Amino acid sequence: MLQGIASVPVASSFRNAMSRVGASVHIVTSAGPAGRVGFTASAVSSVTDSPPILLVCVNRLASSHEPILSNGVLCVNTLAEEQEPLSRRFSEKIPFEQRFDGADWGTLRTGSPVLQHALASMDCRILDALEYGTHSVIMAQVIDMKYRQDRARGLIYFDRCYHAVGSA
Amino acid sequence: MLQGIASVPVASSFRNAMSRVGASVHIVTSAGPAGRVGFTASAVSSVTDSPPILLVCVNRLASSHEPILSNGVLCVNTLAEEQEPLSRRFSEKIPFEQRFDGADWGTLRTGSPVLQHALASMDCRILDALEYGTHSVIMAQVIDMKYRQDRARGLIYFDRCYHAVGSA
Repeated sequence: MLQGIASVPVASSFRNAMSRVGASVHIVTSAGPAGRVGFTASAVSSVTDSPPILLVCVNRLASSHEPILSNGVLCVNTLAEEQEPLSRRFSEKIPFEQRFDGADWGTLRTGSPVLQHALASMDCRILDALEYGTHSVIMAQVIDMKYRQDRARGLIYFDRCYHAVGSA
Repeated sequence: MLQGIASVPVASSFRNAMSRVGASVHIVTSAGPAGRVGFTASAVSSVTDSPPILLVCVNRLASSHEPILSNGVLCVNTLAEEQEPLSRRFSEKIPFEQRFDGADWGTLRTGSPVLQHALASMDCRILDALEYGTHSVIMAQVIDMKYRQDRARGLIYFDRCYHAVGSA
């Protein structure tokens, strides 16, 4: 299916173009028999609200990939401006328990870690994982959630830097 | 597969939570035997860079849905700050040709409309369309693209308002 394209843009050019596409920053977590894991993600999208479904793209080589699929649940925690240090921590190659240190976590319905004071936390059970290139597209149904109703600003990654978005 | 959840959050709560998740604004276009169409989208995500693949979520009731799938190609044009009026125009219920008026369009390889001065334009052929709830998740391989290398700021939709992101 991916054959027969004479000159597909190279990966580095695609990454340069995608650096011009701003995206919210999330910590995606999971807990269950395969352990408690979490990583920083920006490839997250709402899919439909009837029923509430979102998707998360995860590199199949990422250390979180197999535990998340094995647990069958995940939580997408969307970061507020002041949570930038947490984004950096969950991007580091350090043990999962060390990543979770230094922030307050709770749970909703699936038991996946829910970040206190995240802009939004969507607690999900996994419906499907579809393989494309190096990544899995994980389709997940939102079965519980919470979100901040104050005016907290969001954290956006754009031009390979962090930015705040929203009214101060 | 979507059965058996005792109390799924209602669509309106999900939309409220998703309003706290900022997203880039895009005009997704297509041209071919089924006509020239375009609509404003924020549910777009990069999937993998090897090979370059992205996804676009489209309501199956949207007037663009069938033409895009029938044409088999699309272009994702990511908007810069100053293109907010175009976002509004492509959200209106007006004929497609009227939407395209008032901006300059070119083409790359698929023939889909490419917005001049978009932050990035990803010209794609469609690989798959997967149905979830009310929407199709359209998986598309990037076969040509261009992007701005100046410091133009991006257009983000957050808290049900437009915002600029990036260094001025």
